[in-house]
Amino acid sequence: MQKLVALLTDFGLEDSYVAVMKAVMRTIEPELDFVDISHAVHPQSVRSGAITLMNSHSYFPDGTIFLVVIDPGVGSHRRPVVVKAGPYYFVAPDNGVLSYALAQFEDYQAVTLSNRDYHLPQISHTFHGRDIFAPAAAHLAHGVAMTDFGTTIDDLVSLPEPQLHIEAGRITGEVLHIDHFGNVATSIGKLRWVGPERLVLTDGGKSVRIPARNTSLRLHGETISSIAHAFHELPRGHLLAQVDSNGYLEVAVNQGSAAQRLGVAVGDEVSLIYKMDTGLLAES
Amino acid sequence: MQKLVALLTDFGLEDSYVAVMKAVMRTIEPELDFVDISHAVHPQSVRSGAITLMNSHSYFPDGTIFLVVIDPGVGSHRRPVVVKAGPYYFVAPDNGVLSYALAQFEDYQAVTLSNRDYHLPQISHTFHGRDIFAPAAAHLAHGVAMTDFGTTIDDLVSLPEPQLHIEAGRITGEVLHIDHFGNVATSIGKLRWVGPERLVLTDGGKSVRIPARNTSLRLHGETISSIAHAFHELPRGHLLAQVDSNGYLEVAVNQGSAAQRLGVAVGDEVSLIYKMDTGLLAES
Amino acid sequence: MQKLVALLTDFGLEDSYVAVMKAVMRTIEPELDFVDISHAVHPQSVRSGAITLMNSHSYFPDGTIFLVVIDPGVGSHRRPVVVKAGPYYFVAPDNGVLSYALAQFEDYQAVTLSNRDYHLPQISHTFHGRDIFAPAAAHLAHGVAMTDFGTTIDDLVSLPEPQLHIEAGRITGEVLHIDHFGNVATSIGKLRWVGPERLVLTDGGKSVRIPARNTSLRLHGETISSIAHAFHELPRGHLLAQVDSNGYLEVAVNQGSAAQRLGVAVGDEVSLIYKMDTGLLAES
Repeated sequence: MQKLVALLTDFGLEDSYVAVMKAVMRTIEPELDFVDISHAVHPQSVRSGAITLMNSHSYFPDGTIFLVVIDPGVGSHRRPVVVKAGPYYFVAPDNGVLSYALAQFEDYQAVTLSNRDYHLPQISHTFHGRDIFAPAAAHLAHGVAMTDFGTTIDDLVSLPEPQLHIEAGRITGEVLHIDHFGNVATSIGKLRWVGPERLVLTDGGKSVRIPARNTSLRLHGETISSIAHAFHELPRGHLLAQVDSNGYLEVAVNQGSAAQRLGVAVGDEVSLIYKMDTGLLAES
Repeated sequence: MQKLVALLTDFGLEDSYVAVMKAVMRTIEPELDFVDISHAVHPQSVRSGAITLMNSHSYFPDGTIFLVVIDPGVGSHRRPVVVKAGPYYFVAPDNGVLSYALAQFEDYQAVTLSNRDYHLPQISHTFHGRDIFAPAAAHLAHGVAMTDFGTTIDDLVSLPEPQLHIEAGRITGEVLHIDHFGNVATSIGKLRWVGPERLVLTDGGKSVRIPARNTSLRLHGETISSIAHAFHELPRGHLLAQVDSNGYLEVAVNQGSAAQRLGVAVGDEVSLIYKMDTGLLAES
Repeated sequence: MQKLVALLTDFGLEDSYVAVMKAVMRTIEPELDFVDISHAVHPQSVRSGAITLMNSHSYFPDGTIFLVVIDPGVGSHRRPVVVKAGPYYFVAPDNGVLSYALAQFEDYQAVTLSNRDYHLPQISHTFHGRDIFAPAAAHLAHGVAMTDFGTTIDDLVSLPEPQLHIEAGRITGEVLHIDHFGNVATSIGKLRWVGPERLVLTDGGKSVRIPARNTSLRLHGETISSIAHAFHELPRGHLLAQVDSNGYLEVAVNQGSAAQRLGVAVGDEVSLIYKMDTGLLAES
């Protein structure tokens, strides 16, 4: 079995940036395999990268090294770091891009990438992915101990959490992500179905029961009056709300693009108005 | 040698969908390699995926597992299947996406993916690529027998065949695919050159001889008056008809985009008017 | 360790062209790994591919086989070749696409791919990537000697060098590449910082010292009055000139797109007016 490095960047696929990072890694550690998570994170969008990492990392095998380079602060004093959390390693700039994924673990160990022995000999001011981050990921795969990379730290940068306000009868969130199909993912999660007519949303210690039918979702002037189980419950071209594959409420169009239909953007407010009955809002 | 999984989807590369499928597969079977056929199939276009698979599968090594997820019916009752044909395995929704490739084999064995032992523990309503198809491909690579996945079936869904009408002096087809360069592939095939002046088209039991020069191709109001051997026979920027790398008649512009020039779309009618002489239309 | 093939083409990722080349290679030599440099070279742009290869090849491990298919002359008499230079092999059409990379080596050996034993049985007129180049790369990885592929040649096609004119007080170059972020790379290099206030440009035997502050860069009607060390020295949204990760002068916008701001295109003239003092222009 070869060691696995999973790459997430905003570098695009037009240029050779991603390939050069892989080339640097294979030179240091030839027994490496790569999986590209995405290289189409919106340029410089640390938050968008953080959301993608949050939703994908847990499917990877134990021991995976995540190389995450969304780095608008390259060349400034932001710290490059390696972080161990659960069965995974993360190599990234300390700008919050790891924070949503790390929030899913009990704790983590973090070390700066300050040891010049594990950088390329020449460090540019504009491409630390090649000069610092990729070498660190490869040396890690090669067996270098985390503490050899630099200084242990415990004050990693965190992004503000996605908006989610739970009141009696109303949950307010925001548009988190718009995918390739135009499906609109919101911050309203973790949702799961309990029987065919009711969902439960769990947030920290809170648990909210939501009836699928007596509920309306409001987004960008549109109202969707129930929560469906799957696309095919609505006719082709119809707008629907459903639970997406990560447990978040999403707005979609059966075989169409909800984003295009609604003209929404990441960050737009979304609210869910639901009919309360006894016990709908309870401390679990 | 590692087992090879070839992926074909309409998931795009902006999101982490493809990576999550690979992560699931590597967790089940670490000795896996991946080749991406394409993830840019037009969203929900089962037929477009079927054409891409038809034209590419035969170049892969024996034992390749094709994971094909173009799945507008996800969450409905369409069946997930694994199919063995010739030296290959195919894992896909049973919506016809395999039918053009399977038509190239004498026969096939098909089994539904109904055994929950080989699904992820939680099945979403929107991402069976992750929850059902990727696990099946990985378990297959790991050595699980086909019949363990579910029930043998023999009624796979087939798409209507691409249009191709052969008459004396006239062949009518349709635009099948427009590629990255703007080359326009038609359903008029299988064509091969016999000598520098004549082509033969074979369709089932029929064989048609077509003279390269006394022939005109009509598409979207344009007429091309002969069939060239290669781009460079026409000056840069000129429109030409030629046999593409899969044996189909294509319309192209030397160092330009025929699709842009002609404004054609997939499904547009194309016809080839050729001058008959003795024996041009014959049962072979 | 598996053999590494690095692929660079203008094939895009919508179609199956790249996958079919990989499939052909894995069939010939199963112990192969692939790294994609890019498949988004501007269609038919030999020069753009040459620049990408020049800037990326040296990061790859020894023994890497570069498969470079930007081939507007496919089907004509341009020669397919395999070239050995330094620790690398290059397989490509002989149209100049290798010339900028090869210029970085003392010498090279080149052989035509004329031996039909190492082609696919059927050669199309439009896809030599599949029929000639990919098989050659795989047979090379499998251990076939270079001289077995065909005839040794020493007259490879070269592209004209990127523009660079050095005069006392003025350096004139051109826009070479615009990247995914809209950063504008110029032909003014190889540059390196010597202390915080001064750069040195080395071109052949010439060495020019350039003060970072008493210098102005002119491009498309805009003037930038100093050379920065890194993005973050300028406020977000500001235009700057800096040394890019390959040692070339680039024009960029901190967290924005310089290409969009300036409306520049590849080939546009750029000039650097610098204040001379003793010894600024010297034969080294």
